[in-house]
Amino acid sequence: MDDSDTRRGRAAAHRSFADLHLSQGWAGPAEPFGHSVAILLGDLALIASERVFDSARLAPRVRSATREVFDRMRTEVIAGQYLDVLTQALPWDHSAASDEDRARAVIRYKSARYSVEHPLALGAALAAADDDAVAACRVIGLPLGEAFQLRDDLLGVFGDPATTGKPAGDDLRQGKRTVLVSRALSLADGQDRARLTQALGRRDLTDDDVARLRSLLDRTGAVAQVEHLIDTLAGPALQALSDADLAEPGRSMLVRLGRAAVDRRA
Amino acid sequence: MDDSDTRRGRAAAHRSFADLHLSQGWAGPAEPFGHSVAILLGDLALIASERVFDSARLAPRVRSATREVFDRMRTEVIAGQYLDVLTQALPWDHSAASDEDRARAVIRYKSARYSVEHPLALGAALAAADDDAVAACRVIGLPLGEAFQLRDDLLGVFGDPATTGKPAGDDLRQGKRTVLVSRALSLADGQDRARLTQALGRRDLTDDDVARLRSLLDRTGAVAQVEHLIDTLAGPALQALSDADLAEPGRSMLVRLGRAAVDRRA
Repeated sequence: MDDSDTRRGRAAAHRSFADLHLSQGWAGPAEPFGHSVAILLGDLALIASERVFDSARLAPRVRSATREVFDRMRTEVIAGQYLDVLTQALPWDHSAASDEDRARAVIRYKSARYSVEHPLALGAALAAADDDAVAACRVIGLPLGEAFQLRDDLLGVFGDPATTGKPAGDDLRQGKRTVLVSRALSLADGQDRARLTQALGRRDLTDDDVARLRSLLDRTGAVAQVEHLIDTLAGPALQALSDADLAEPGRSMLVRLGRAAVDRRA
Repeated sequence: MDDSDTRRGRAAAHRSFADLHLSQGWAGPAEPFGHSVAILLGDLALIASERVFDSARLAPRVRSATREVFDRMRTEVIAGQYLDVLTQALPWDHSAASDEDRARAVIRYKSARYSVEHPLALGAALAAADDDAVAACRVIGLPLGEAFQLRDDLLGVFGDPATTGKPAGDDLRQGKRTVLVSRALSLADGQDRARLTQALGRRDLTDDDVARLRSLLDRTGAVAQVEHLIDTLAGPALQALSDADLAEPGRSMLVRLGRAAVDRRA
């Protein structure tokens, strides 16, 4: 959906099947073939995740508690992805606060809850944790997950393709409406704001264009603000995790995982 | 995936969200927006089907028997759809027998098993039928399902759009490799074969072109052969169903359903 040709440094599924089609000289257009196969692979993966879940031998109470988290996790990520796709399509609101609200709603549903909060709660539920422990995981997971995605957005613009596995600047070429971008639009002077608005979403940005946009984002102060926001979200969450009434070595491992999620280069 | 703009007489999901995008004057291209939303809806529907299944209160033995059918049904339809997409992309083999073999493999996995055989087995398993009764359903279901899809292929070319809900001739515009088409290619004289090969898969076929192709398919004798194949498959299956050791009114209802599946106009 984001039309990136690579994922984790390898050809994305739609790209690799389109390439197969081209290399074999098959009939019809290659791109729709690649898209169709990628959609089918996604469906298979969804069913496979269900089969793994269903085949786990769980006590009935644990089963129903984890099933609830599992279903909500999968449903919300789809809603979050829709919100993301929709947000890219909606016009900028020209109110920085509301643009940022939208960007953060996408982050929460698509990433923070899906990648961190729900997985923590799922693990806790599988370990038959009581309601308080599950709730503690959720309170920690949401801000940590937001910080995780804010880091991802910074890496999407400033990351090294060799370590991120994604082409540099693709987030800019896709016109991704991140917190970083909405902060920059609100902080930039008129000229920089116009430059940024014109460049966002242009598929034909060169590497030089991307380099210039990086400087622009940096000099508005938006990068520093997002770094600060990451600290504000992750700091208290990691502290709460360190102080939490959780058994070792689980607690230390979670703290290390939490740090790795927000302080990374790939 | 088949790029039809309508489904059951209404705008297809991808089309209706692309239209929403256009009517709202949103940013970026409308088509990929429509495709993304349709993919997400499909994922939601897959999860919803799982939730319905999971929420059924089943005895453990019934549950594991139906789960097996349910999982196989969903996995096979995806494999069948892949086979369909792949078959459209592969060159015609110029051996009528092997083209028809491919077309029938698609029918079996994508339609016959998914739409008829597995649903029958699922119903039987849910009713705690013994292995013999489930096996009897399968033996009847597969040929009936093939006949069902062969009828669908005929309707895809000869059906009335007002009753089928699909634009007339879309199967021809998509170059769908049906048993009907492979029979026609094998039966046609050189001139008709060349006409058919050139026309298949052309998006720009006019209604007049479609009408001419209909006459062509008819005069090769392929239509009569496919009608005969439907009878050959459905006749014995319906007879076996009538004779089966199944309780009433279930048996009579199944026979009526079976007849409706192969003898229909929509």
